[in-house]
Amino acid sequence: MANPVVTKRRFVGTHVPMEPTRFETHPSKYKHWRLSVDGEVATVVMAVDADHPHKPGYELKLNSYDLSVDIELADVIQRLRFEHPTVKTVVFTADLDRVFCSGANIYMLGLSSHSFKVNFCKFTNETRLYLEDASAESGLASLCACKGTTAGGGYELALACDETVLVDDGSSAVSFPETPLLAVLPGTGGLTRLVDKRKVRRDRADVFCTTAEGIKGKRAKDWGLVEDVISRTKWDETVKARAGKLAAKQTVARGPAVELPELAPKITATSFVYKYVELAYDKATRTAQLTVKGPDAAPQADSLDPNQWSLRAFCELDDALLHLRFDLSDIGMVLVRTVGDAAQVLAHDAALAAAKTGFAREVRLLQKRVLKRFDNTARSFYAVADAPTSCFAGSLLELALGADRFYALLDDKISVALSVANEGFNTTHTGLSRLGARFYGEPERVGKVIARGKEGPIDVEEAEALGIVTVAADDIDFADELRIAVEERASLSPDALTGMEASLRFVGPETMETKIFGRLSAWQNWIFTRANSTGEHGALTLYGRPERPQFQWNRT
Amino acid sequence: MANPVVTKRRFVGTHVPMEPTRFETHPSKYKHWRLSVDGEVATVVMAVDADHPHKPGYELKLNSYDLSVDIELADVIQRLRFEHPTVKTVVFTADLDRVFCSGANIYMLGLSSHSFKVNFCKFTNETRLYLEDASAESGLASLCACKGTTAGGGYELALACDETVLVDDGSSAVSFPETPLLAVLPGTGGLTRLVDKRKVRRDRADVFCTTAEGIKGKRAKDWGLVEDVISRTKWDETVKARAGKLAAKQTVARGPAVELPELAPKITATSFVYKYVELAYDKATRTAQLTVKGPDAAPQADSLDPNQWSLRAFCELDDALLHLRFDLSDIGMVLVRTVGDAAQVLAHDAALAAAKTGFAREVRLLQKRVLKRFDNTARSFYAVADAPTSCFAGSLLELALGADRFYALLDDKISVALSVANEGFNTTHTGLSRLGARFYGEPERVGKVIARGKEGPIDVEEAEALGIVTVAADDIDFADELRIAVEERASLSPDALTGMEASLRFVGPETMETKIFGRLSAWQNWIFTRANSTGEHGALTLYGRPERPQFQWNRT
Repeated sequence: MANPVVTKRRFVGTHVPMEPTRFETHPSKYKHWRLSVDGEVATVVMAVDADHPHKPGYELKLNSYDLSVDIELADVIQRLRFEHPTVKTVVFTADLDRVFCSGANIYMLGLSSHSFKVNFCKFTNETRLYLEDASAESGLASLCACKGTTAGGGYELALACDETVLVDDGSSAVSFPETPLLAVLPGTGGLTRLVDKRKVRRDRADVFCTTAEGIKGKRAKDWGLVEDVISRTKWDETVKARAGKLAAKQTVARGPAVELPELAPKITATSFVYKYVELAYDKATRTAQLTVKGPDAAPQADSLDPNQWSLRAFCELDDALLHLRFDLSDIGMVLVRTVGDAAQVLAHDAALAAAKTGFAREVRLLQKRVLKRFDNTARSFYAVADAPTSCFAGSLLELALGADRFYALLDDKISVALSVANEGFNTTHTGLSRLGARFYGEPERVGKVIARGKEGPIDVEEAEALGIVTVAADDIDFADELRIAVEERASLSPDALTGMEASLRFVGPETMETKIFGRLSAWQNWIFTRANSTGEHGALTLYGRPERPQFQWNRT
Repeated sequence: MANPVVTKRRFVGTHVPMEPTRFETHPSKYKHWRLSVDGEVATVVMAVDADHPHKPGYELKLNSYDLSVDIELADVIQRLRFEHPTVKTVVFTADLDRVFCSGANIYMLGLSSHSFKVNFCKFTNETRLYLEDASAESGLASLCACKGTTAGGGYELALACDETVLVDDGSSAVSFPETPLLAVLPGTGGLTRLVDKRKVRRDRADVFCTTAEGIKGKRAKDWGLVEDVISRTKWDETVKARAGKLAAKQTVARGPAVELPELAPKITATSFVYKYVELAYDKATRTAQLTVKGPDAAPQADSLDPNQWSLRAFCELDDALLHLRFDLSDIGMVLVRTVGDAAQVLAHDAALAAAKTGFAREVRLLQKRVLKRFDNTARSFYAVADAPTSCFAGSLLELALGADRFYALLDDKISVALSVANEGFNTTHTGLSRLGARFYGEPERVGKVIARGKEGPIDVEEAEALGIVTVAADDIDFADELRIAVEERASLSPDALTGMEASLRFVGPETMETKIFGRLSAWQNWIFTRANSTGEHGALTLYGRPERPQFQWNRT
């Protein structure tokens, strides 16, 4: 693969990453959850193994969670969508006696770097949004059955479910103790969902979020914090009935069942290599190259092959993005290239959209989620089309439209192309399509570009004129122009770039999703860097110790 | 005034504030701007006096600005609205040869505390929004005539204007050099306005915001960064013509002219005392009491009295809120009380709404802006109705609805009341009314509460049942309940509270305003605390020195 920028320095400063995170898992390997399926209802039991934290140094007591717990949660939601199409309601419950979930593990947060904390929160937020997406798009409702205290991130999981019920035992409460106990926020969507989704009155939300012990019983129901409170004696039958009612409401059919492909990337000293995706990086220049290959064969109609390009390539891309976030925090600049036959990409997009199965729709929804994960990754992305094998077409063109810039070489043999994947299905977090976000000022141009796309490939000169390409240059200038742009970008403050990209990428309307990632997360990031939470005398740092936190009182 | 919480400790730990900021000014006292009015067009010349910074330690070279410059800018916009109703276009220009404005002074930022930086940015954002408000609501358009380089906050001022023209002289550019040069954001609305208001294509915005030297000439126009570029020879006539065209489009009539009242608060060791407003504070408990008195006489129809309650009380409240922000950064908990005759408040609200003058409408718009400033102030506000003289009615009830909580004593003689001021005119930053935000989950209840308000005062028990009051308690419990709530709140981390309040207060839709304060400002706050900008080796810290910044490369 052509790589004018990175190649020369690839072997400078390389190193083997320290135990890369494994995002791939399988129910047979779960340590923290148990999945069982009974007809239309799946039960997912939170049974966190205290002795298997993501990293050594803390115990996952009282169903507290860390990244390893959330990776399994993300996996089970994904597998229910693909592998258990008969399931219409997933019930989350726990096997502890008086505790459903005590939230994110505080000692883990205390031990984690700022970068890890932020990425951990982002991943857990995405996972909860995927749960809501499964309900909204795929006929998979969720019920959080809290037979015990449900605190912090535990209640944030509950908020992401369609319904939450709480045991009425005189002591079990739902609570957000983050602000009073830890001097941080319920940042996994909690504050936003409380008032924007559940529409709890904002003055009551204020009381709730500053009451460490939480709210229980009738008041929890009256304030709209839970759908119902249920006695222990009526617990099982009521939960079962509610799960059944939720299932009965579902109208979207998934399936047939297809087992998700095993990705098993090859991890080298400088790359993560998958079948269709390669993430190669260079620590010396702090740059990476993310290459996605197009399909290697024509699509089959109504294919149920788990290794078909449309599914596998995007699963691989998802995994690579997570490695980029968690294992390569100092790689700030990523060049995105595609290689393959554009016509085949278009054919696969078309076959997927034409397929009659619920499974095919699930694949499209997965592509949409992966592309959102791309938008939401705090790295500078420049898409680069500089070889005749470049195939920014259809679903892969979304990567160029989502990138911060798109560089293309003026060459007769290079073009871009549109497919049904660019016509609105792949919405971003804002609800706009990527073409809609690009032409936010000229919505009429979206239709014009789509119409032009139906006529065939668009060469680079025209693509620049249409506003698809940011920078087009001929072969005399292209390599230098790109090299300089990459070096400049890689020299800028990563914090300023993250804030800038988070503002420019999410142009347009705000949604609950963008409020979570843009407003709530940005405040939480700020709070995580403040001494009052994470300083030597901060509340998060001192949690569980006898010392009281010492606060700096200046309000901003 | 009853004050069960603060009184006892008022004289503990008091001190005289160090030179409180003066927000009141007058064109005759301006050091940094010159106002001239010629028929329908006012010209406001930026002529920053380098030797009169807000605080010693830096010079305001090249029309760079600081708080003192922005206080005068806010004043001139306000006075144009009230005192120059014939003006339909304000033209911003400068008297330097090759520079319009070089943005916020970097040395000032480098010397400022985090709290000051954040509040400075918030104030300058509000000022720019007021400029947009004047155009949208009051028939006062704005034209930024940039006859020279327009950088950073200078271009952010331009973005807030209806139109911007740039001189085409081969060197003058508009630019956002914050990210490349200072490792911070164009945070005075810049990033948001660029893509959301001006709708610059987001990949071009990315190029623009990372190009320190900016963009000039034809490209600036082609990219939509300015309305036009004009040669020096055609400058004066073109600017004049554009100003005239903007003026001709205005349809809202202001006036008659009324000179704004002089507030001249009495500043004591523990308070700021105005005619209708008192802000008393206690450094020992880190609490304050903000008391607003109702009108002392019946309203006059179509009054042009600058000292009428509806105008003066809200001007005073505005000034008090700014003192709270800038001079009392360690006061986190503010009890808001009202005292007076509720019927008189309602009468004044009604008289104002019924008045036929453009001036009366300006007063209502001013009330709206002051109430938004209240919502946007990073302090915990508890409204308290605990005396028969309490008058949370109409425009003053908005304070209780905007507060984080509303405590009321169950007492036959205490009630709340609604007026036309609660019926939708006073929108918050989200575009919702305060009743709309309170009942975000039950919009039908807004109409019900308004209908109930028309029947007369609402006692505390009913107000609690209606959802207006958060906590109602009888005289046995009230004082203790409030005392404990205040002490608890004052003990919590100010950062976590700021983030929490910013999420709960701004429930509902996001607008350009909330994107600026919630998304852009939150990211900027975070960036301001990061070592890459403000650390020992950060870019903001080292600006103007020979050393190069040293960045920590971890992306989040």
